[in-house]
Amino acid sequence: VVLELFATPAALTRYAPLVRAVRDSGARLSPVTDEALGTLADTVNPQGLVAVCRHVDVDLDTVPAHVRLVAVLVEVRDPGNAGTVLRTADAAGATAVVFAGASVDPYNPKCVRASAGSLFHVALVRAGDAAAVLARLRAAGLRVLAADAHGSADLDDLADAGALAAPTAWLFGSEAHGLPDVLAEAADARVRVPIHGRAESLNLAAAAAVCLYASARAHRLKEPPA
Amino acid sequence: VVLELFATPAALTRYAPLVRAVRDSGARLSPVTDEALGTLADTVNPQGLVAVCRHVDVDLDTVPAHVRLVAVLVEVRDPGNAGTVLRTADAAGATAVVFAGASVDPYNPKCVRASAGSLFHVALVRAGDAAAVLARLRAAGLRVLAADAHGSADLDDLADAGALAAPTAWLFGSEAHGLPDVLAEAADARVRVPIHGRAESLNLAAAAAVCLYASARAHRLKEPPA
Repeated sequence: VVLELFATPAALTRYAPLVRAVRDSGARLSPVTDEALGTLADTVNPQGLVAVCRHVDVDLDTVPAHVRLVAVLVEVRDPGNAGTVLRTADAAGATAVVFAGASVDPYNPKCVRASAGSLFHVALVRAGDAAAVLARLRAAGLRVLAADAHGSADLDDLADAGALAAPTAWLFGSEAHGLPDVLAEAADARVRVPIHGRAESLNLAAAAAVCLYASARAHRLKEPPA
Repeated sequence: VVLELFATPAALTRYAPLVRAVRDSGARLSPVTDEALGTLADTVNPQGLVAVCRHVDVDLDTVPAHVRLVAVLVEVRDPGNAGTVLRTADAAGATAVVFAGASVDPYNPKCVRASAGSLFHVALVRAGDAAAVLARLRAAGLRVLAADAHGSADLDDLADAGALAAPTAWLFGSEAHGLPDVLAEAADARVRVPIHGRAESLNLAAAAAVCLYASARAHRLKEPPA
Protein backbone atom coordinates (compact mmCIF):
# COMPACT_ATOMS: atom_id res chain seq x y z
CA VAL A 1 0.00 0.00 0.00
CA VAL A 2 3.05 2.30 0.18
CA LEU A 3 3.32 4.75 -2.73
CA GLU A 4 6.33 6.74 -1.55
CA LEU A 5 8.67 6.50 1.42
CA PHE A 6 10.57 9.46 2.86
CA ALA A 7 13.51 8.47 5.05
CA THR A 8 16.31 10.22 6.91
CA PRO A 9 19.89 8.93 6.53
CA ALA A 10 19.71 7.37 10.00
CA ALA A 11 16.41 5.64 9.20
CA LEU A 12 17.74 4.28 5.90
CA THR A 13 20.38 2.42 7.92
CA ARG A 14 18.30 1.54 10.92
CA TYR A 15 15.33 0.17 8.97
CA ALA A 16 17.32 -1.17 6.00
CA PRO A 17 15.28 -4.38 5.48
CA LEU A 18 12.03 -2.38 5.58
CA VAL A 19 13.39 0.22 3.18
CA ARG A 20 14.51 -2.53 0.80
CA ALA A 21 11.10 -4.20 0.90
CA VAL A 22 9.40 -0.91 0.08
CA ARG A 23 11.77 -0.22 -2.82
CA ASP A 24 11.32 -3.76 -4.15
CA SER A 25 7.54 -3.24 -4.13
CA GLY A 26 7.95 -0.50 -6.72
CA ALA A 27 7.30 2.44 -4.37
CA ARG A 28 9.38 5.57 -4.74
CA LEU A 29 12.11 6.06 -2.13
CA SER A 30 12.96 9.67 -1.24
CA PRO A 31 15.89 10.32 1.11
CA VAL A 32 15.31 13.53 3.08
CA THR A 33 17.07 15.51 5.79
CA ASP A 34 15.99 15.36 9.43
CA GLU A 35 14.56 18.86 9.04
CA ALA A 36 12.48 17.94 5.99
CA LEU A 37 11.16 14.82 7.70
CA GLY A 38 10.28 16.89 10.74
CA THR A 39 7.97 19.03 8.63
CA LEU A 40 6.32 15.94 7.07
CA ALA A 41 5.66 14.14 10.37
CA ASP A 42 3.29 15.53 12.95
CA THR A 43 4.82 13.79 15.93
CA VAL A 44 7.36 15.61 18.08
CA ASN A 45 9.94 12.82 17.82
CA PRO A 46 9.41 11.18 14.43
CA GLN A 47 11.07 7.82 13.81
CA GLY A 48 12.72 8.98 10.58
CA LEU A 49 10.28 7.37 8.16
CA VAL A 50 7.13 8.82 6.58
CA ALA A 51 5.20 6.75 4.04
CA VAL A 52 2.55 7.99 1.66
CA CYS A 53 0.03 5.17 1.41
CA ARG A 54 -3.03 4.65 -0.70
CA HIS A 55 -6.33 4.48 1.15
CA VAL A 56 -7.10 0.93 2.19
CA ASP A 57 -10.82 1.03 2.95
CA VAL A 58 -13.10 -1.33 1.09
CA ASP A 59 -16.80 -1.53 0.40
CA LEU A 60 -18.83 -3.48 2.94
CA ASP A 61 -20.08 -5.71 0.13
CA THR A 62 -16.57 -6.98 -0.49
CA VAL A 63 -16.24 -8.31 3.07
CA PRO A 64 -16.48 -12.12 2.95
CA ALA A 65 -19.86 -13.46 4.03
CA HIS A 66 -18.54 -16.03 6.48
CA VAL A 67 -16.90 -13.83 9.05
CA ARG A 68 -17.11 -14.43 12.80
CA LEU A 69 -16.37 -11.05 14.30
CA VAL A 70 -16.94 -7.48 13.12
CA ALA A 71 -16.67 -4.19 15.06
CA VAL A 72 -18.79 -1.21 14.05
CA LEU A 73 -17.98 2.27 15.37
CA VAL A 74 -21.00 4.57 15.28
CA GLU A 75 -20.44 8.32 15.67
CA VAL A 76 -17.13 7.71 17.45
CA ARG A 77 -15.40 11.09 17.23
CA ASP A 78 -12.25 10.62 19.28
CA PRO A 79 -9.45 9.43 16.98
CA GLY A 80 -7.45 7.84 19.81
CA ASN A 81 -10.45 5.78 20.94
CA ALA A 82 -11.31 4.77 17.37
CA GLY A 83 -7.74 3.70 16.61
CA THR A 84 -7.51 1.76 19.86
CA VAL A 85 -10.74 -0.11 19.13
CA LEU A 86 -9.43 -0.89 15.63
CA ARG A 87 -6.23 -2.33 17.17
CA THR A 88 -8.17 -4.30 19.77
CA ALA A 89 -10.62 -5.65 17.18
CA ASP A 90 -7.69 -6.89 15.10
CA ALA A 91 -6.14 -8.53 18.16
CA ALA A 92 -9.46 -10.21 18.99
CA GLY A 93 -9.62 -11.66 15.49
CA ALA A 94 -12.16 -9.35 13.86
CA THR A 95 -12.29 -9.58 10.08
CA ALA A 96 -13.69 -6.11 9.52
CA VAL A 97 -13.98 -2.78 11.32
CA VAL A 98 -16.64 -0.36 10.11
CA PHE A 99 -16.44 3.40 10.72
CA ALA A 100 -20.12 4.31 10.44
CA GLY A 101 -22.18 7.46 10.61
CA ALA A 102 -20.21 10.58 11.46
CA SER A 103 -17.32 8.67 13.01
CA VAL A 104 -13.82 10.13 12.84
CA ASP A 105 -11.86 9.73 9.61
CA PRO A 106 -9.89 6.47 10.00
CA TYR A 107 -6.98 8.23 8.26
CA ASN A 108 -6.80 10.86 10.99
CA PRO A 109 -3.13 10.74 12.09
CA LYS A 110 -4.00 10.08 15.75
CA CYS A 111 -6.31 7.24 14.72
CA VAL A 112 -3.66 5.76 12.44
CA ARG A 113 -1.05 5.88 15.22
CA ALA A 114 -3.42 4.43 17.84
CA SER A 115 -4.25 1.57 15.47
CA ALA A 116 -0.57 0.54 15.58
CA GLY A 117 -0.74 -0.95 12.09
CA SER A 118 -4.08 -2.72 12.49
CA LEU A 119 -5.46 -0.31 9.90
CA PHE A 120 -3.69 -2.54 7.38
CA HIS A 121 -4.71 -5.88 8.94
CA VAL A 122 -8.49 -5.78 8.89
CA ALA A 123 -11.04 -5.00 6.19
CA LEU A 124 -11.59 -1.33 6.90
CA VAL A 125 -15.01 0.00 5.84
CA ARG A 126 -16.37 3.54 5.84
CA ALA A 127 -20.14 3.78 5.70
CA GLY A 128 -22.37 6.77 6.20
CA ASP A 129 -25.57 4.97 7.13
CA ALA A 130 -25.16 2.87 10.29
CA ALA A 131 -28.67 1.38 9.97
CA ALA A 132 -27.84 0.09 6.50
CA VAL A 133 -24.64 -1.45 7.88
CA LEU A 134 -26.63 -3.23 10.57
CA ALA A 135 -29.10 -4.57 8.01
CA ARG A 136 -26.30 -5.74 5.72
CA LEU A 137 -24.44 -7.51 8.54
CA ARG A 138 -27.58 -9.23 9.74
CA ALA A 139 -28.38 -10.33 6.20
CA ALA A 140 -24.89 -11.88 6.14
CA GLY A 141 -25.93 -14.03 9.11
CA LEU A 142 -24.25 -12.09 11.91
CA ARG A 143 -25.82 -11.62 15.31
CA VAL A 144 -25.77 -7.87 16.01
CA LEU A 145 -25.00 -6.84 19.60
CA ALA A 146 -25.16 -3.24 20.80
CA ALA A 147 -22.67 -2.36 23.54
CA ASP A 148 -24.77 -0.28 25.92
CA ALA A 149 -23.86 0.68 29.51
CA HIS A 150 -27.57 0.45 30.36
CA GLY A 151 -28.32 -2.63 28.26
CA SER A 152 -30.72 -5.24 29.59
CA ALA A 153 -28.45 -8.19 28.75
CA ASP A 154 -25.38 -8.91 30.87
CA LEU A 155 -22.27 -9.89 28.90
CA ASP A 156 -21.39 -12.72 31.30
CA ASP A 157 -24.93 -14.13 31.11
CA LEU A 158 -24.71 -14.18 27.31
CA ALA A 159 -21.36 -15.95 27.54
CA ASP A 160 -22.79 -18.50 30.01
CA ALA A 161 -25.75 -19.13 27.68
CA GLY A 162 -23.45 -19.75 24.72
CA ALA A 163 -24.97 -16.76 22.95
CA LEU A 164 -21.57 -15.31 22.01
CA ALA A 165 -20.49 -18.33 19.99
CA ALA A 166 -22.45 -17.18 16.92
CA PRO A 167 -20.80 -14.94 14.32
CA THR A 168 -21.19 -11.51 15.87
CA ALA A 169 -21.07 -7.84 14.92
CA TRP A 170 -20.57 -5.46 17.86
CA LEU A 171 -21.86 -1.90 17.65
CA PHE A 172 -19.98 0.71 19.71
CA GLY A 173 -21.24 4.28 20.14
CA SER A 174 -19.53 7.48 21.14
CA GLU A 175 -18.14 7.82 24.66
CA ALA A 176 -20.25 10.92 25.26
CA HIS A 177 -23.62 9.76 23.92
CA GLY A 178 -23.46 5.99 23.44
CA LEU A 179 -25.33 4.50 20.52
CA PRO A 180 -28.29 6.26 18.93
CA ASP A 181 -31.32 4.69 20.60
CA VAL A 182 -33.01 3.67 17.36
CA LEU A 183 -29.89 1.75 16.30
CA ALA A 184 -29.42 0.03 19.67
CA GLU A 185 -33.10 -1.01 19.54
CA ALA A 186 -32.59 -2.51 16.10
CA ALA A 187 -29.79 -4.77 17.38
CA ASP A 188 -30.47 -8.34 18.53
CA ALA A 189 -29.56 -7.38 22.11
CA ARG A 190 -28.37 -4.39 24.11
CA VAL A 191 -25.47 -5.71 26.13
CA ARG A 192 -23.84 -4.20 29.20
CA VAL A 193 -20.43 -5.06 30.56
CA PRO A 194 -21.11 -5.81 34.25
CA ILE A 195 -19.85 -3.19 36.68
CA HIS A 196 -18.65 -4.88 39.87
CA GLY A 197 -17.32 -1.79 41.62
CA ARG A 198 -18.44 1.80 41.93
CA ALA A 199 -17.39 3.09 38.51
CA GLU A 200 -20.36 4.41 36.55
CA SER A 201 -19.11 2.94 33.31
CA LEU A 202 -16.08 1.85 31.35
CA ASN A 203 -14.49 4.02 28.73
CA LEU A 204 -15.21 3.10 25.14
CA ALA A 205 -11.92 1.35 24.39
CA ALA A 206 -12.02 -0.71 27.59
CA ALA A 207 -15.66 -1.75 27.06
CA ALA A 208 -14.87 -2.71 23.47
CA ALA A 209 -11.88 -4.78 24.61
CA VAL A 210 -14.01 -6.72 27.09
CA CYS A 211 -16.84 -7.30 24.57
CA LEU A 212 -14.62 -8.28 21.64
CA TYR A 213 -12.52 -10.63 23.77
CA ALA A 214 -15.65 -12.23 25.24
CA SER A 215 -16.67 -13.07 21.66
CA ALA A 216 -13.18 -14.25 20.77
CA ARG A 217 -13.16 -16.57 23.77
CA ALA A 218 -16.60 -17.96 22.93
CA HIS A 219 -15.50 -18.59 19.34
CA ARG A 220 -12.37 -20.32 20.54
CA LEU A 221 -14.28 -22.53 22.99
CA LYS A 222 -16.56 -23.54 20.14
CA GLU A 223 -13.68 -24.59 17.92
CA PRO A 224 -12.90 -28.30 17.71
CA PRO A 225 -9.63 -29.10 19.48
CA ALA A 226 -6.64 -28.88 17.13
CA VAL B 1 -12.62 14.67 50.52
CA VAL B 2 -13.55 18.12 49.17
CA LEU B 3 -11.87 21.00 51.02
CA GLU B 4 -13.10 23.86 48.85
CA LEU B 5 -15.40 24.14 45.87
CA PHE B 6 -15.20 26.91 43.28
CA ALA B 7 -18.35 27.29 41.18
CA THR B 8 -19.65 29.64 38.52
CA PRO B 9 -23.18 31.07 38.83
CA ALA B 10 -24.44 28.67 36.15
CA ALA B 11 -22.85 25.67 37.90
CA LEU B 12 -24.35 26.66 41.27
CA THR B 13 -27.77 26.31 39.67
CA ARG B 14 -27.07 23.36 37.43
CA TYR B 15 -25.40 21.22 40.10
CA ALA B 16 -27.41 22.52 43.08
CA PRO B 17 -27.77 19.17 44.90
CA LEU B 18 -24.04 18.51 44.56
CA VAL B 19 -23.17 22.02 45.74
CA ARG B 20 -25.47 21.58 48.74
CA ALA B 21 -23.88 18.25 49.65
CA VAL B 22 -20.43 19.80 49.52
CA ARG B 23 -21.49 22.75 51.69
CA ASP B 24 -23.19 20.41 54.17
CA SER B 25 -19.95 18.44 54.46
CA GLY B 26 -18.26 21.53 55.89
CA ALA B 27 -16.20 22.38 52.80
CA ARG B 28 -15.79 26.03 51.82
CA LEU B 29 -17.90 27.18 48.87
CA SER B 30 -16.43 29.94 46.71
CA PRO B 31 -18.57 31.42 43.93
CA VAL B 32 -16.36 32.65 41.07
CA THR B 33 -16.81 34.21 37.66
CA ASP B 34 -16.50 32.19 34.45
CA GLU B 35 -13.19 33.91 33.82
CA ALA B 36 -11.78 33.01 37.23
CA LEU B 37 -12.90 29.42 36.87
CA GLY B 38 -11.29 29.27 33.44
CA THR B 39 -7.93 30.08 34.98
CA LEU B 40 -8.41 27.42 37.69
CA ALA B 41 -9.40 24.62 35.32
CA ASP B 42 -7.02 23.22 32.77
CA THR B 43 -9.63 21.93 30.36
CA VAL B 44 -10.72 24.05 27.41
CA ASN B 45 -14.41 23.78 28.27
CA PRO B 46 -14.62 23.46 32.07
CA GLN B 47 -17.92 22.33 33.56
CA GLY B 48 -18.10 25.25 35.97
CA LEU B 49 -16.90 23.43 39.08
CA VAL B 50 -13.39 23.05 40.46
CA ALA B 51 -12.89 21.26 43.78
CA VAL B 52 -9.79 21.31 45.92
CA CYS B 53 -9.59 17.84 47.45
CA ARG B 54 -7.28 16.30 49.97
CA HIS B 55 -5.05 13.49 48.75
CA VAL B 56 -6.79 10.15 49.09
CA ASP B 57 -3.96 7.64 48.81
CA VAL B 58 -3.43 5.20 51.64
CA ASP B 59 -0.61 2.99 52.81
CA LEU B 60 -0.56 -0.52 51.36
CA ASP B 61 -0.64 -1.92 54.89
CA THR B 62 -4.08 -0.41 55.45
CA VAL B 63 -5.59 -2.37 52.55
CA PRO B 64 -7.77 -5.15 53.98
CA ALA B 65 -6.13 -8.57 53.85
CA HIS B 66 -9.05 -10.39 52.29
CA VAL B 67 -9.27 -8.68 48.92
CA ARG B 68 -9.94 -10.51 45.69
CA LEU B 69 -8.58 -8.18 43.03
CA VAL B 70 -5.78 -5.63 42.99
CA ALA B 71 -4.18 -3.80 40.04
CA VAL B 72 -0.55 -2.67 40.23
CA LEU B 73 0.83 -0.17 37.73
CA VAL B 74 4.61 -0.39 37.40
CA GLU B 75 6.48 2.45 35.69
CA VAL B 76 3.32 3.49 33.81
CA ARG B 77 4.13 7.01 32.67
CA ASP B 78 1.14 7.95 30.53
CA PRO B 79 -1.49 9.64 32.72
CA GLY B 80 -4.37 8.80 30.37
CA ASN B 81 -3.48 5.11 30.40
CA ALA B 82 -3.01 5.07 34.16
CA GLY B 83 -6.34 6.79 34.79
CA THR B 84 -8.13 4.47 32.40
CA VAL B 85 -6.71 1.38 34.11
CA LEU B 86 -7.78 2.84 37.46
CA ARG B 87 -11.33 3.31 36.14
CA THR B 88 -11.39 -0.19 34.61
CA ALA B 89 -10.02 -1.78 37.80
CA ASP B 90 -12.79 -0.11 39.80
CA ALA B 91 -15.41 -1.35 37.31
CA ALA B 92 -13.99 -4.88 37.50
CA GLY B 93 -14.33 -4.81 41.29
CA ALA B 94 -10.73 -4.21 42.34
CA THR B 95 -10.29 -3.17 45.96
CA ALA B 96 -6.99 -1.40 45.48
CA VAL B 97 -4.90 0.13 42.70
CA VAL B 98 -1.19 0.61 43.34
CA PHE B 99 0.92 3.16 41.47
CA ALA B 100 4.35 1.60 41.88
CA GLY B 101 7.90 2.48 40.92
CA ALA B 102 8.22 5.61 38.82
CA SER B 103 4.60 5.55 37.66
CA VAL B 104 2.84 8.82 36.88
CA ASP B 105 1.46 10.86 39.79
CA PRO B 106 -2.15 9.66 40.27
CA TYR B 107 -3.08 13.30 40.93
CA ASN B 108 -1.89 14.34 37.47
CA PRO B 109 -4.94 16.16 36.02
CA LYS B 110 -5.14 13.91 32.94
CA CYS B 111 -5.00 10.83 35.16
CA VAL B 112 -7.70 12.21 37.46
CA ARG B 113 -9.98 12.98 34.51
CA ALA B 114 -9.38 9.58 32.85
CA SER B 115 -10.22 7.86 36.13
CA ALA B 116 -13.73 9.38 35.93
CA GLY B 117 -14.11 9.41 39.72
CA SER B 118 -12.66 5.96 40.35
CA LEU B 119 -9.76 7.66 42.12
CA PHE B 120 -12.21 8.06 45.01
CA HIS B 121 -13.70 4.55 44.81
CA VAL B 122 -10.72 2.27 45.30
CA ALA B 123 -7.93 2.16 47.86
CA LEU B 124 -5.29 4.16 46.02
CA VAL B 125 -1.72 3.33 46.99
CA ARG B 126 1.54 4.97 45.96
CA ALA B 127 4.63 2.84 46.49
CA GLY B 128 8.16 3.38 45.30
CA ASP B 129 9.38 -0.19 45.45
CA ALA B 130 7.38 -2.49 43.17
CA ALA B 131 9.18 -5.62 44.39
CA ALA B 132 8.17 -4.83 47.97
CA VAL B 133 4.56 -4.38 46.80
CA LEU B 134 4.66 -7.80 45.14
CA ALA B 135 6.05 -9.41 48.30
CA ARG B 136 3.45 -7.72 50.48
CA LEU B 137 0.55 -8.76 48.21
CA ARG B 138 1.76 -12.33 48.07
CA ALA B 139 2.12 -12.41 51.84
CA ALA B 140 -1.52 -11.30 51.98
CA GLY B 141 -2.43 -14.46 50.07
CA LEU B 142 -2.87 -13.02 46.60
CA ARG B 143 -1.77 -14.81 43.46
CA VAL B 144 0.43 -12.36 41.54
CA LEU B 145 0.05 -12.39 37.75
CA ALA B 146 2.28 -10.36 35.42
CA ALA B 147 0.55 -9.13 32.26
CA ASP B 148 3.17 -9.77 29.60
CA ALA B 149 2.62 -9.74 25.83
CA HIS B 150 5.23 -12.51 25.56
CA GLY B 151 4.16 -14.43 28.66
CA SER B 152 4.23 -18.22 28.60
CA ALA B 153 0.74 -18.60 30.10
CA ASP B 154 -2.36 -17.91 27.97
CA LEU B 155 -5.11 -15.99 29.76
CA ASP B 156 -7.86 -18.26 28.38
CA ASP B 157 -5.98 -21.39 29.47
CA LEU B 158 -5.72 -20.00 33.01
CA ALA B 159 -9.44 -19.24 32.97
CA ASP B 160 -10.22 -22.77 31.72
CA ALA B 161 -8.05 -24.26 34.45
CA GLY B 162 -9.84 -22.27 37.15
CA ALA B 163 -6.58 -20.51 37.97
CA LEU B 164 -8.17 -17.05 37.94
CA ALA B 165 -10.64 -17.80 40.73
CA ALA B 166 -8.04 -17.18 43.44
CA PRO B 167 -7.60 -13.68 44.89
CA THR B 168 -5.35 -12.03 42.33
CA ALA B 169 -3.04 -9.05 41.95
CA TRP B 170 -2.31 -8.07 38.35
CA LEU B 171 0.95 -6.29 37.49
CA PHE B 172 0.87 -3.99 34.45
CA GLY B 173 4.01 -2.40 33.00
CA SER B 174 4.57 0.58 30.77
CA GLU B 175 3.27 0.49 27.21
CA ALA B 176 6.76 1.16 25.85
CA HIS B 177 8.79 -1.30 27.91
CA GLY B 178 6.39 -3.70 29.61
CA LEU B 179 7.25 -4.92 33.09
CA PRO B 180 10.83 -4.99 34.35
CA ASP B 181 12.00 -8.55 33.71
CA VAL B 182 13.05 -9.21 37.29
CA LEU B 183 9.59 -8.27 38.52
CA ALA B 184 7.74 -10.34 35.91
CA GLU B 185 9.93 -13.32 36.84
CA ALA B 186 9.03 -12.88 40.49
CA ALA B 187 5.30 -13.15 39.71
CA ASP B 188 3.47 -16.48 39.94
CA ALA B 189 2.91 -16.46 36.16
CA ARG B 190 3.63 -14.29 33.13
CA VAL B 191 0.32 -14.12 31.33
CA ARG B 192 -0.39 -13.08 27.76
CA VAL B 193 -3.71 -12.01 26.35
CA PRO B 194 -4.12 -14.21 23.26
CA ILE B 195 -3.76 -12.41 19.93
CA HIS B 196 -6.13 -13.92 17.38
CA GLY B 197 -5.46 -11.51 14.53
CA ARG B 198 -2.40 -9.79 13.15
CA ALA B 199 -1.98 -7.05 15.78
CA GLU B 200 1.38 -7.32 17.52
CA SER B 201 -0.09 -6.49 20.88
CA LEU B 202 -2.86 -4.69 22.72
CA ASN B 203 -2.41 -1.27 24.23
CA LEU B 204 -1.99 -1.17 27.99
CA ALA B 205 -5.52 -0.09 28.87
CA ALA B 206 -7.13 -2.70 26.59
CA ALA B 207 -4.92 -5.50 27.89
CA ALA B 208 -5.67 -4.48 31.47
CA ALA B 209 -9.42 -4.47 30.73
CA VAL B 210 -9.30 -8.01 29.34
CA CYS B 211 -7.16 -9.32 32.24
CA LEU B 212 -9.11 -7.63 35.03
CA TYR B 213 -12.46 -8.70 33.58
CA ALA B 214 -11.23 -12.28 33.15
CA SER B 215 -10.52 -12.29 36.89
CA ALA B 216 -13.84 -10.65 37.69
CA ARG B 217 -15.67 -13.29 35.68
CA ALA B 218 -13.78 -16.13 37.37
CA HIS B 219 -14.58 -14.66 40.79
CA ARG B 220 -18.23 -14.34 39.85
CA LEU B 221 -18.42 -17.91 38.55
CA LYS B 222 -16.95 -19.08 41.84
CA GLU B 223 -19.56 -17.27 43.89
CA PRO B 224 -22.47 -19.33 45.19
CA PRO B 225 -25.72 -18.43 43.37
CA ALA B 226 -27.61 -15.63 45.12
